Amino acid sequence: MSRTENAPWTEPLDALLREWAQTAAARDKSGGTAFHERDLLRKSGLLRLSIPAQYGGDGALWSTTLDIVRRMAQVDSSLAHLFAFHHLQLATIRLFGRDTQIRHWLSETVNQGWFWGNALNPLDKSTRALPGETNGYLFDGRKSFCSGARDSDQLLASAFDSDGKLLIGVTPTNRAGITVLDDWDNMGQRQTDSGTVIFERVGIAPDELLNDPGPLSSPFACLRPLLAQAILSHIYVGIGEGALQAAREATLAQARPWIASQAERPSEDPYVIAHYGDFWVALEGARLLAERAMQAFDEAWQRGLALTESERGEVAIAVATSKVAAARAGLEVASRMFDVTGARSTTAALRLDRFWRNVRVHTLHDPIDYKVRELGDWALNGRAPKPSFYS
Amino acid sequence: MSRTENAPWTEPLDALLREWAQTAAARDKSGGTAFHERDLLRKSGLLRLSIPAQYGGDGALWSTTLDIVRRMAQVDSSLAHLFAFHHLQLATIRLFGRDTQIRHWLSETVNQGWFWGNALNPLDKSTRALPGETNGYLFDGRKSFCSGARDSDQLLASAFDSDGKLLIGVTPTNRAGITVLDDWDNMGQRQTDSGTVIFERVGIAPDELLNDPGPLSSPFACLRPLLAQAILSHIYVGIGEGALQAAREATLAQARPWIASQAERPSEDPYVIAHYGDFWVALEGARLLAERAMQAFDEAWQRGLALTESERGEVAIAVATSKVAAARAGLEVASRMFDVTGARSTTAALRLDRFWRNVRVHTLHDPIDYKVRELGDWALNGRAPKPSFYS
Amino acid sequence: MSRTENAPWTEPLDALLREWAQTAAARDKSGGTAFHERDLLRKSGLLRLSIPAQYGGDGALWSTTLDIVRRMAQVDSSLAHLFAFHHLQLATIRLFGRDTQIRHWLSETVNQGWFWGNALNPLDKSTRALPGETNGYLFDGRKSFCSGARDSDQLLASAFDSDGKLLIGVTPTNRAGITVLDDWDNMGQRQTDSGTVIFERVGIAPDELLNDPGPLSSPFACLRPLLAQAILSHIYVGIGEGALQAAREATLAQARPWIASQAERPSEDPYVIAHYGDFWVALEGARLLAERAMQAFDEAWQRGLALTESERGEVAIAVATSKVAAARAGLEVASRMFDVTGARSTTAALRLDRFWRNVRVHTLHDPIDYKVRELGDWALNGRAPKPSFYS
Amino acid sequence: MSRTENAPWTEPLDALLREWAQTAAARDKSGGTAFHERDLLRKSGLLRLSIPAQYGGDGALWSTTLDIVRRMAQVDSSLAHLFAFHHLQLATIRLFGRDTQIRHWLSETVNQGWFWGNALNPLDKSTRALPGETNGYLFDGRKSFCSGARDSDQLLASAFDSDGKLLIGVTPTNRAGITVLDDWDNMGQRQTDSGTVIFERVGIAPDELLNDPGPLSSPFACLRPLLAQAILSHIYVGIGEGALQAAREATLAQARPWIASQAERPSEDPYVIAHYGDFWVALEGARLLAERAMQAFDEAWQRGLALTESERGEVAIAVATSKVAAARAGLEVASRMFDVTGARSTTAALRLDRFWRNVRVHTLHDPIDYKVRELGDWALNGRAPKPSFYS
Repeated sequence: MSRTENAPWTEPLDALLREWAQTAAARDKSGGTAFHERDLLRKSGLLRLSIPAQYGGDGALWSTTLDIVRRMAQVDSSLAHLFAFHHLQLATIRLFGRDTQIRHWLSETVNQGWFWGNALNPLDKSTRALPGETNGYLFDGRKSFCSGARDSDQLLASAFDSDGKLLIGVTPTNRAGITVLDDWDNMGQRQTDSGTVIFERVGIAPDELLNDPGPLSSPFACLRPLLAQAILSHIYVGIGEGALQAAREATLAQARPWIASQAERPSEDPYVIAHYGDFWVALEGARLLAERAMQAFDEAWQRGLALTESERGEVAIAVATSKVAAARAGLEVASRMFDVTGARSTTAALRLDRFWRNVRVHTLHDPIDYKVRELGDWALNGRAPKPSFYS
Repeated sequence: MSRTENAPWTEPLDALLREWAQTAAARDKSGGTAFHERDLLRKSGLLRLSIPAQYGGDGALWSTTLDIVRRMAQVDSSLAHLFAFHHLQLATIRLFGRDTQIRHWLSETVNQGWFWGNALNPLDKSTRALPGETNGYLFDGRKSFCSGARDSDQLLASAFDSDGKLLIGVTPTNRAGITVLDDWDNMGQRQTDSGTVIFERVGIAPDELLNDPGPLSSPFACLRPLLAQAILSHIYVGIGEGALQAAREATLAQARPWIASQAERPSEDPYVIAHYGDFWVALEGARLLAERAMQAFDEAWQRGLALTESERGEVAIAVATSKVAAARAGLEVASRMFDVTGARSTTAALRLDRFWRNVRVHTLHDPIDYKVRELGDWALNGRAPKPSFYS
Repeated sequence: MSRTENAPWTEPLDALLREWAQTAAARDKSGGTAFHERDLLRKSGLLRLSIPAQYGGDGALWSTTLDIVRRMAQVDSSLAHLFAFHHLQLATIRLFGRDTQIRHWLSETVNQGWFWGNALNPLDKSTRALPGETNGYLFDGRKSFCSGARDSDQLLASAFDSDGKLLIGVTPTNRAGITVLDDWDNMGQRQTDSGTVIFERVGIAPDELLNDPGPLSSPFACLRPLLAQAILSHIYVGIGEGALQAAREATLAQARPWIASQAERPSEDPYVIAHYGDFWVALEGARLLAERAMQAFDEAWQRGLALTESERGEVAIAVATSKVAAARAGLEVASRMFDVTGARSTTAALRLDRFWRNVRVHTLHDPIDYKVRELGDWALNGRAPKPSFYS
Repeated sequence: MSRTENAPWTEPLDALLREWAQTAAARDKSGGTAFHERDLLRKSGLLRLSIPAQYGGDGALWSTTLDIVRRMAQVDSSLAHLFAFHHLQLATIRLFGRDTQIRHWLSETVNQGWFWGNALNPLDKSTRALPGETNGYLFDGRKSFCSGARDSDQLLASAFDSDGKLLIGVTPTNRAGITVLDDWDNMGQRQTDSGTVIFERVGIAPDELLNDPGPLSSPFACLRPLLAQAILSHIYVGIGEGALQAAREATLAQARPWIASQAERPSEDPYVIAHYGDFWVALEGARLLAERAMQAFDEAWQRGLALTESERGEVAIAVATSKVAAARAGLEVASRMFDVTGARSTTAALRLDRFWRNVRVHTLHDPIDYKVRELGDWALNGRAPKPSFYS
C-alpha cells in the first residue's frame, strides 16, 4: 500500500513498530499499563494523525489511520487498540459536537499532545448524570471497560440523566472526583488499560457536553459505531498477520520435519505448506474486505450531514462483513499457527499464545453471531442494520 | 459496479440474461448443445467484447469481460463458460501470436461473427503434430474436454511434435479431418460442449501456428493461464450469487417457518438468517478477491512484454487466492442453500441442485489442493507459482 | 459387526445388495417406481425382519433392522428408505395400536407378504376425518410426501377430525377412494415414491384406527418419532459410506496423479490421502453414534410402557446427536468425494452426484438447525426434547 | 458409566477431583511442580490402579484407567497427564520387560508408593548409552520433555548405544548422575513437569534394561505407543468436557443476553444454544470413539503375545480415529466456549483460557496432520499404521 509512503508519519511509525516488536512478549507477560510505549506514541506525533490540518493535525484519511492500526496490531494489538481508541474519541467529538467544541479539543490535542481515553460505555447504565449545582451535570458512578483511561489526559465519558437519556461529556482525566483504577487484568489485550473508572459527582459543564447535534443524531453521526467496528476489524486482521509472521519465522527456523514426513525441511512439508495456504486465503480476504469498508467509510465521511440513511446502511454492511471475516481469519490463524510451528514453540518464553488470547478477547467486544445476523438480514430481507452503538 | 453502465453492451447483455434465466433449468435437464442461446450470443455483439477497438471490437478491459462472465454465471454457468472461453482463445492469439496473426484473426472474428472453440489441452499428449506434406503440420489424434468446439467457427488446437514440443494451431472448425463429437454428458456444466474432437491428419499451415513468440514464451505470454484461472473464479462467484438469489426467492416465498421455530415467517427465523449472513460473507470476500485479481491482471496486461516474472508472480497469487476463495464460497452456498429453502425446494421441476452440480464440476478443473499449496508456498517460502498451463 | 452373521436374512440380503448395486445409477437416472427391486425385497423375506417371532417374523432387534437399512443405503438410499419406512409403519402399529390390531396386521404382513406405505404426515392438515355414515370416519383430502405408497399393499394414513385431533388409520392401498399418483420427481431420493395420495371419502372403520393407546400416548409410544429419526441417521451414514466406497474405487483406478503432485499415483498423493482421513473420521464417529443410539433405543423398547419420560429423553438425545453427526458426515463426504476422484468422475454415466443429491434431499426431512438446538438445550439447560412427530 | 461405581477408587477419586477443581486456576497461574497435588495422588491409592491384583494393585482395565484420566482432565489436564504417564511407564515395563522385572517393579510400586516419571524420548538421540565399567551401560546426555520426572521416585529412560540401538532402562530418580531441572515453563499443561533431565554417566545395570523381549518387539509390545496415544485422546476429551462445563456455569450465571437478542436470558438465546449443540455433538462423538478405542485396546491387551499385526493394526486405527476427533473437539470447544460466555469471562481471575492453552499444547505432541494421513492410508489403501513410538 503506497498511501503511507513519504508521509510525515512513515519514519516515526516504523521506529515505533520496531521498538514495540522487541518488547511485546514481555509486556504480555507483565500486564499493566505500558507507560513507556504510550510515551513513545505521544512523542511520535501519531496522536495527531487523524486531526484535520486546519487544527494542526496530519489530516490523514480514516482508511490511512486504520491501516496504521492494523500494522500496529501485527506487533502489539493492545497498543494498537489504545492508539485507535484515542482517534475514536476525536472522531466522536467531530461527529457529536459543535464546531467550537471540535476546534477547541482538536487544536488543544495537537498543542498539548493529549492522549485520550474512553469512559463511554452506553451499555453501562449505572453511571448517572445528576443535575449540577448551578448548571451542567454531576457524573456519578463506576464505569467498566474504560480502554486507555489510565495515563490519559482527557476522557470521553457517558452517563444517563434521570430521563434515561444518554449524555456524553468531555473532561480532563485529572478532574476532581475521577479515580482511574489499575484493575485491568485479562487473559488477552493486557495493555489496553480497560479497567474501571470511578466518577464521584464529577462536574461536567454545559459546553463539555456533546449534545449538539449529539449522539447518533444523524446518519453522519451514526458513523461513530461504524468507525469503532472498523477499528476492531483492523485489529483482528493485524493480529492474524502478526501470528502468520511469527509462525513463519518458527517454521523457517526449524531444521527437521516430523519423522513421518518425507520432506527435507518443515517448510517443504505438504501439510505445513497447505496450512499456510489456508492462512493466506483467509487473511487476504479479510484484508480486502477491511480496505473496501474503509473506502466506503472515507466516502461517507466526506458526505458529512448530507449522508443518507441508506448510504450509511451500505457502509454498515461493508464494515460488518469485514468484521466477521476478520474475526474468523484472526481466530483461525492464531489457533492453527501452532500446527505449523510444533510443540517446541509452546514454550512460555515465546508467548506465542498471545495472538490467540488477544484476538479471542477482542472478538468478544460484541457477539459475532449478531453481526452475522445483521448481514443475513441484509442479504435476505434487504434490511440495513439499525444504528446503535454497536451497529 | 458502474463500469458497465452506458456501455454499448449493456442492453444486449441484459436482454440475453433475461432470456437465459427463463430457460436455464430446462437446458440443465435436456443437456446437449445450446444452439439457440449460442446464436443469441452471436447476435448480441458480445463476442467482440474483448477485441481491441483497432480491430473493430469493443475494447473492453479483461476485468470488464470477466465481470460479465460472472453475471452470466449467475444465470447459466455453462453459457458463461462458452462465452469466456471464446475470449480466452482470442487472448491466447494475442499472447502467443504475431501481430499479423492477431490482426487477421481478431478482425475476422468481428467481421464474420466467429465463435471460437477450444481444442487446446496441454495435458492430453495423445494428439501428435506430424510433418505436413509440403510444410506445416498434420494434427492427428483425439482430444477430450474441448469446450465450445461444437457449433464453433474456429478452433485453437494443440498437438505435440516428435520432440515433445507443444504446438498450438488455429483452424476453421469445418476443415477436412475434423470431427466434433456430440458426446458431452456430465453431471454439471451440461452445455459447455466439452466433448471430444477427432483430428485426422488435419493440415495446419505454418502461419496458422502460434509459435512466434509462442506459448508461455514470456511473463506476458504466461498471463494466459492466469486468465483461464480467473475465468474459473468468476464463474464460481457467479454460481454462488445465482444460488443465493434462487435461495432467497424460495425463502421469501414461503409462508410457514419450521414448526419448532418461534418466528412468524421463515425469513425471520434466526437460523435461516444466520445462514444468509454466512453466504454473504463468503461471497463478498470472493467477489472482492476476484475484483482485485482482475485489477492486477489489467495492469499486467498493459505492461505487455515489459512485464517481469516477479510482477507476473504477484498476479498469479492474486488470481490463485481468488480462485480458492471463490471455489469454497461457491460450493458452500450451493450446498447449504437447501438448509434455507427446505424440503419442497428439492423438486426436480426447480432443478436447484444445478448450482451445486455446476460448481462442483467446475471446481475440479484443476485441484484446489494444489492451488492452496501454491499460496502456502508463497506465504511461507516467498515462492511465486512456476508458470504452467495451470499456474 | 457380527450380529447379522448366520442370521436367516444374511444371504438374501447380500444377494439383494449385489443386484441393487448394479442398477442403482440407472434407477437414479430413470426415476419412477422401482417395481422390480420392490419385488425382490418382497421375495427376500426382509419385510418380516422386525416382526416378532410370535407373529411369524424374524424378531430382529431395531438395531439390527437399522443396521441393514444402513447397508442398503450404501448401495441405494431410496430403496433403503422404502424398506425402513415399511418397518416404521409396523412399529407404529405396535406403539399406537391395541394387541389385537398388532397381532392381526403383523401376522397378515407375514402371511400375505405385504409391503407397507406411508400416508401419515402430521404436518399436513388438509386431510380431514369426516364422520362415517354408520360409524368410523371418512378420510378426505390430498396428502403429499407419501413415501412408499405406490405399489404398496397397506397404508398408514393420518387425518384430522373436526376438533383438530390427529387420527391414524390403516387401510389397504386399493380401497375405493384412494388414488396414488405417480408424481414424485425429485433431485434426489428418486425412488422413494414420496408422491401424492388422494383420499376421497375413504372409509376407515373404528377397528382400523390406532387410537388405543393412540399416537404419542406414552413415553413408549413416543419412541415412534425416534425410530423415524434414527432411520434417517442410518441412511445418511450409509450414503456417506457408499460415497466413500465409490470414491475409493475411482481413486484406485486412476494411474496418474495431478501434474503438480510428486506422488507416483493418486493414491499416494498427500492431499488425496488426507481427504480420505477426514472422511474416515467423520463416518466412524457417525457410525458409533448411530450404534449407540440404537443400543439405547433397543433398551428403551424392551422397557415398553414402563419407559419413563426421562429415559425416553435420553434416547431422544442419543438419536438426535447421531442424526446431526450423520447428516454432516454424509454431506461432507458426498461433496468432497470429487476432490479425490477428479474431473473425469463427473461424467453423467457414473452419476456419482447421486450420493450428494440423495443425502442433500434427505437431510432436509426436518431442519438440522433445530436438532442442533435440541442438543444445545440439553447440554446447556438440561432439557430433553419435547416429544413430537419430529423430536 | 457404571464400571467405576462401587470400585475401591471411587471415593478417593471423587475427593481428589473436588480438591483439584478448587485450585486448578491458581496452579495454572503459578506454574511449577504441583507437589501437594502429587502427594494427594500418592495417598489416594490411584497410583496402583492399573497394577494387576497379583502384584497388589487394583487390576483396573486400561479402559477404566483412561476413563479416570479423562475425568481428571476435566478438572486439571496437567495432573491427568502425570497420572496417565505414571501408568504408561508401568505398562511399558509390562510390554517390554521380563516377568521378573515386571513382578519386581510393579510390586515395589505398590509397596513403596512409587510415582514414576518419564525420561523416554525416542526422538531425542542425544543421550548415549556408553559401555559400563564392568557390565551394563552408562547413560549420558540431556533429555527434554521428561514429563513427571520432577518429584518422581523412579524413571524410565532411553538412550542410544554406539550402534544406534534404542535402550530403555529403569532407575531410581535419585541415582547419582541424574539431575532433574526445574525448567518447564510452557503456555499450557503447566504442571506436567515436562522439563529437562541431565544424565551424567548414570549406571544402568543389565537387569535394569527392558530388552527382553524389548521395545516394540511384538505386536503386543507395539501396544505401548497406542496406549500413549489413547492417553492423549482421553485428555483432549476431558479438556473439552471441562471447558463445556465451565462455559455452562458462566452462561447460566448471566442474567442479560446481548442487547440485540430477543431472548429473556443468555441461556435462551438461539445462537448461544446452537453453540452448545455443536459442542455436544463434537464431544459426544469423541467420547464414543475414545470408548470404542479402549474396548479394542482391552481386548488386544488380553490377547498378549498372541496378538497379530493385523489385530494390532485395527486397534491402532481405532486409537488414531479417536485422537483426531478428540483433538478437533477439544480445540473447538475450548476456543468457541468464549462465544457463549462473553467478554466478562476473559478476566484473568478465571483463567478460562487455560482450557485452550492446555489442549493446544497437548495436541501438538505429534502432528494431527500425520494421524489424519494414517487414517486416510487405511481408508483408501487399506494399510494399517506402521508401528513406531508414535503410531
